[in-house]
Amino acid sequence: MNILIIGGGGVIGQKLASALAANGTLRGQPITRLTLADINDPASVDASFEVTTTRCDIADPASVAQAVTADIDVIYLLAAIVSSHAEEDFDAGMKINLFGTYNVLERCRSLGTKPVVIFTSSIAIYGGEAVDPLGDHSYPNPQTSYGTQKAIGETLINDYTRKGYIDGRAFRLPTISVRPGKPNRAASGFMSSIFREPLNGQPAICPVASDFEHYYLSPRKCVENLVKGANLAAADLGQNRVMQMPGRTWSIQQMIDAMTAVTGPQAATLIDWTPQSDVQRIVSGWRWDIHADKAERLGLTADDSYEDNIRHYMTDDKP
Amino acid sequence: MNILIIGGGGVIGQKLASALAANGTLRGQPITRLTLADINDPASVDASFEVTTTRCDIADPASVAQAVTADIDVIYLLAAIVSSHAEEDFDAGMKINLFGTYNVLERCRSLGTKPVVIFTSSIAIYGGEAVDPLGDHSYPNPQTSYGTQKAIGETLINDYTRKGYIDGRAFRLPTISVRPGKPNRAASGFMSSIFREPLNGQPAICPVASDFEHYYLSPRKCVENLVKGANLAAADLGQNRVMQMPGRTWSIQQMIDAMTAVTGPQAATLIDWTPQSDVQRIVSGWRWDIHADKAERLGLTADDSYEDNIRHYMTDDKP
Repeated sequence: MNILIIGGGGVIGQKLASALAANGTLRGQPITRLTLADINDPASVDASFEVTTTRCDIADPASVAQAVTADIDVIYLLAAIVSSHAEEDFDAGMKINLFGTYNVLERCRSLGTKPVVIFTSSIAIYGGEAVDPLGDHSYPNPQTSYGTQKAIGETLINDYTRKGYIDGRAFRLPTISVRPGKPNRAASGFMSSIFREPLNGQPAICPVASDFEHYYLSPRKCVENLVKGANLAAADLGQNRVMQMPGRTWSIQQMIDAMTAVTGPQAATLIDWTPQSDVQRIVSGWRWDIHADKAERLGLTADDSYEDNIRHYMTDDKP
Repeated sequence: MNILIIGGGGVIGQKLASALAANGTLRGQPITRLTLADINDPASVDASFEVTTTRCDIADPASVAQAVTADIDVIYLLAAIVSSHAEEDFDAGMKINLFGTYNVLERCRSLGTKPVVIFTSSIAIYGGEAVDPLGDHSYPNPQTSYGTQKAIGETLINDYTRKGYIDGRAFRLPTISVRPGKPNRAASGFMSSIFREPLNGQPAICPVASDFEHYYLSPRKCVENLVKGANLAAADLGQNRVMQMPGRTWSIQQMIDAMTAVTGPQAATLIDWTPQSDVQRIVSGWRWDIHADKAERLGLTADDSYEDNIRHYMTDDKP
């Protein structure tokens, strides 16, 4: 198996690379080579097989042609600009999230090698007039350009697969928490930072009320599911290669209780409850009554409890 | 009102132009100008206002910029290549149906004039694992590239509207019957030709059994709905500018009975029942349990019975 991760420098890309290195196999075959591609040269990982890193700008078809070569069996297409960036800079979102995806798919089509392509979509495709409960068969009515571009990517994955140009699989990722690293500007940032910062001994602001509910998955489980997603047999996937990745719905209070149960009462005292109307306005339109029937049937899983998310952070990511 | 019909040379484009000429107003204002644009210079229509015709290749942004100007208030975006063409020539379908739509929307964005854009989507967006009954909130799982490209067009219409770049409205057209003109290669061709040819005194082949059901609308009602679609107030449209246009489900036998009721028994004797497995294979995946709740609530309507479709053909189109 020769594997390419586009977006290999990101949080999920790096963790996926480490998981592949630890596993040593994918789709029942030994991994012979892994390439990590990203807009900036990504960090490498230690592995028993060859790992290379490269720059790739998916908005540029020539750059895509350099990274996506005929000898690649499996492509993880994780690269994207995030929600707030795509909302502020419409052109950049279209160029990277929509045309970048198209460029990768077109390159696959021109090669004629029908690689497995695993595309990460998002629960951002839900919204607007889509009817609860949400899941595999919900109408995508995204209320962000990021969600729009991901919904279009899903549709392309299905058609390029139907035409036999790729063997595609698209997964709508839940909100990832606890996300490691520094705070970012994303409206969802607090959904990780109110745990990550206190667990690191730092204060953090919670801008919403404790009964705010949302749909989450830990980075570790996300990566497990992305590996399983490549391993699935094409024959089991049916006519719709797009599915919700399993997550679980928790309130902020349930998540804090889980942190306390795992690490004691100290961390929660570092949370500063400061309502922020701008954040509340954005996240109040987000959806959480989400179900992942197809993926669960195919063996993908969510965290058992948010205590697991906390434990995974402590084990995998705490500096 | 200064109106542009892109795809103004097609069956619906020409009938829409005639309807606008007869009405003289749109969105409560007198029509001052109508431009019919198409890949080949379209026929003009007689009207009390100025009517011009022009060539426009929507796959070419420069050509789009010439046709879509800042003085235009309402754009009908009807241009597309049909299902069988887009399936045979993937590049052409993407270029015209997907990027052509994008080019028109991008031109509107660059102008900053926020025109009303009425986009014709199709029931071809339904299929695969989408669950019956189908309608405004169904998951688009198209089983053709044409359907894929229309589904993407819908998604773009919603996001360009949400961002305030256009005031968009997208309608999923039922299969149009009785469609005037010559037979074409479309798999749906028989759904018009088995009425049109006999009503013109010619034989026609029916390749499916008489209990085959599908979802239809007459050209006259389609045009009425496209006019109403422009007239709808933005405030009444909510967060999803995409909706199913009303049609009705009939079996072939019900439609033949309607033809007999309107014109007597002679026409039906000209139908040659010759099963064609290739056509049956294609149309067996098509969906007909379709409902148009939102559009009906907003005042769009279907034909009362297929007898009306036959009468409209006799009045409007019979040579």
